[in-house]
Amino acid sequence: MTDYTRIDSYLEANLDRSLAELGQLVAQPSISAQKIGLHECAALVGKMLKARGFSVQIHPTAGSPIVFAERKGKSDQTLLIYNHYDVQPPEPLELWETPPFEPSIRDGKMYGRGVSDDKGHLVSRLHAIDALLAEGELPCTVKFIIEGEEETASVNLAKFVNEHTDLLQADACLWEFGGVDHTDTPQEYLGLRGILYVELSLELLGTDVHSGLGGSIFPNAAWRLVWALNTLKGPDERILVPGFYDEVQLPSARDRELMEALPDPSDDYKSRYGVPYFTKGLAGGTDLKIEEVFTPTCTICGLTAGYQGPGSKTVLPKRASAKVDFRLVPNQNPEKILSSLRAHLDTHGFSDIQIENLGGDFPARTDPDHPFIKLVVDTAKEVYDKPMAVIPITGGSGPNHPFIHVLGLPVATGGMGYPDTRTHAPNENIRIDLYLQHARHVARIIAELGK
Amino acid sequence: MTDYTRIDSYLEANLDRSLAELGQLVAQPSISAQKIGLHECAALVGKMLKARGFSVQIHPTAGSPIVFAERKGKSDQTLLIYNHYDVQPPEPLELWETPPFEPSIRDGKMYGRGVSDDKGHLVSRLHAIDALLAEGELPCTVKFIIEGEEETASVNLAKFVNEHTDLLQADACLWEFGGVDHTDTPQEYLGLRGILYVELSLELLGTDVHSGLGGSIFPNAAWRLVWALNTLKGPDERILVPGFYDEVQLPSARDRELMEALPDPSDDYKSRYGVPYFTKGLAGGTDLKIEEVFTPTCTICGLTAGYQGPGSKTVLPKRASAKVDFRLVPNQNPEKILSSLRAHLDTHGFSDIQIENLGGDFPARTDPDHPFIKLVVDTAKEVYDKPMAVIPITGGSGPNHPFIHVLGLPVATGGMGYPDTRTHAPNENIRIDLYLQHARHVARIIAELGK
Repeated sequence: MTDYTRIDSYLEANLDRSLAELGQLVAQPSISAQKIGLHECAALVGKMLKARGFSVQIHPTAGSPIVFAERKGKSDQTLLIYNHYDVQPPEPLELWETPPFEPSIRDGKMYGRGVSDDKGHLVSRLHAIDALLAEGELPCTVKFIIEGEEETASVNLAKFVNEHTDLLQADACLWEFGGVDHTDTPQEYLGLRGILYVELSLELLGTDVHSGLGGSIFPNAAWRLVWALNTLKGPDERILVPGFYDEVQLPSARDRELMEALPDPSDDYKSRYGVPYFTKGLAGGTDLKIEEVFTPTCTICGLTAGYQGPGSKTVLPKRASAKVDFRLVPNQNPEKILSSLRAHLDTHGFSDIQIENLGGDFPARTDPDHPFIKLVVDTAKEVYDKPMAVIPITGGSGPNHPFIHVLGLPVATGGMGYPDTRTHAPNENIRIDLYLQHARHVARIIAELGK
Repeated sequence: MTDYTRIDSYLEANLDRSLAELGQLVAQPSISAQKIGLHECAALVGKMLKARGFSVQIHPTAGSPIVFAERKGKSDQTLLIYNHYDVQPPEPLELWETPPFEPSIRDGKMYGRGVSDDKGHLVSRLHAIDALLAEGELPCTVKFIIEGEEETASVNLAKFVNEHTDLLQADACLWEFGGVDHTDTPQEYLGLRGILYVELSLELLGTDVHSGLGGSIFPNAAWRLVWALNTLKGPDERILVPGFYDEVQLPSARDRELMEALPDPSDDYKSRYGVPYFTKGLAGGTDLKIEEVFTPTCTICGLTAGYQGPGSKTVLPKRASAKVDFRLVPNQNPEKILSSLRAHLDTHGFSDIQIENLGGDFPARTDPDHPFIKLVVDTAKEVYDKPMAVIPITGGSGPNHPFIHVLGLPVATGGMGYPDTRTHAPNENIRIDLYLQHARHVARIIAELGK
């Protein structure tokens, strides 16, 4: 194998400069759900890429702009790197130890909204590119596609990919995230579940009404929402929308083999999240691991109606709503599920419930035996001092479907996540040692792909 | 009938002075939910009664003090008047046209928090007493019991009544409120439903969790709340807690006769509250009127879980809660319903759901044919120029049970409410013509009871 001593030395010697650059990017709020700072952040990202000799295009979309960048390399191979510059809302603010958009370093960690998801990943990859450029040309061509709506379901990305297949042509794709588990074993996630995220709502009255007046004879939006939700899933966790499971692909023997090789997460979940028990009578082991990622879900993410403050207020609420996400597995189709959901609610007499589609992704997976996956796994071994765990599919979602099924690329993950990284939560943070390791890994991936 | 010309002239001649006194009382905030100004307001009320020659006692309770006052009259009859000096919180402040605690008069109305509920009722009754005292002795003994926790479910009142039956001995009771409907017909409400107000909640995880991670295998508090609520009441509006209806007293033939005499409110409800339809297939008429007040309810007043902001957040909420009120009819018992609810949830596997009791009242009614009710209805006729509508029970709740069932009193209502009086809402107001009419009515009630 190539000697990466000079690369590694560069990465270590310039680490503080790279973290300072990450700090600058984190300090630029870019909250897609709240439409804050997105154009400014896209411009900043473009500037950072131009500074490295990339040709940069900022493409407007119906939502946030998409940043595309390319720099030619020595070989005819091309790596497409997918990242996003938008972040989750920082609320609840009072739970942050330091302000979310004032990044700070303490105890070997850097804190701030987006420091892990996903700005840290982008900047550590730029750090890897700096190290390679310090040696001369890039070993292969590198393209970036960096969107600004990942945290709001990437609603304009698939269309962009479909319309720019030539621009995005590549041989392999590096995904936005990755990381290590609680034993510091690096993870190679080879698939993502799809998602359909909807808001169910209904408004039945012109105003909230005193419950002493309307309770007996006025329709109650909160009750109708409860009854409608109850038709979607029962206490046995079986989802009741007709046809929901029709296209679910069961795990193969190879999937089962890969899942068996993974550690049992059950004790970690209990201590980390205070999980009192698992659903469906599961206790742990391979069955739990398979259930966790190979089954689709219907999750109530939020409920809202009427009075929610302290004490009592005797009100019959005019409106009620629920946020619900469905995680989908191959080969489920979020568009078909949305139609089935509408038909199901209508059939059960809930045509008064409106469905707002807040975003969807198709599920997709990469073949665990693809040569690029082997390259990513092999290059990780030297960096992390232990072999990667190969995970056929993970519970999260993301827009990997157009990359796999439109561009035809193998998609590999790699990154600096770790179990306490708190993405989407207060005190989001990265471990700086993992930041450096990811940069070392990415430099190797680019170098090896160029061979 | 007695000639009340001199009484009426006094009331009219001294109206401005009485309204000024009401203004002083309204300007003293006394918000029981927020524990603001309660002792100060109790002292002010005591002072106002002392100024009229009442002997005044201010009784401490576990919450706000209760003001008791008595002044002997000519006859051996005693009228007990129930009022409260506490008010609802004024929020949302930005919707008030003038500040809630700076009472102001415009277009024949007086505006301010508590001006109707219930300070206006108290001061107009003092105004009636002033008119009677200007003629000499009070025709009968008048006692006041004025509490400071009516807006927070009168949690210490029943105990006080139980422990002071001698002090509170009387022949009849005048309730805190009353008013006219949208045709200016005065209303005689002869009963109040009871209430049990609970918060159902459960917390299953130590933290909110990314829905991609926990959706398949972690228990979801929001789902469990939905399933639990669904066991309480189905879309047919039938409440499913065992034994819930056991003690429900069906309306008598006399009740039905009284209800038939009342106007049909259905069109008014549709236009005033935007009600699209009535539940249980009701269209209007006597069936609707009876269903409105003679049936118990289970109303979801509020729902809370997880993410409730704009757009999507993929979170599995650690906690979920619902505010639920049960309106109870004679002879249901809120304490028994609370036990039945707990047992019902346990039976259905929801022992993880906590029930917080946020307050209760027993239902109670006064016989529509009681002589005191006849007195109140007869005296109203001359004042309002049309007969009172006699309503056997109303949909709201209040602590009339100890007055009716412990003290053994007939309880009559009477007051200055009208459909746009906006109690519990911004721009609470009274019509000054109705303020004066109520004082005229109360003077007659005291005078006739003394005969």
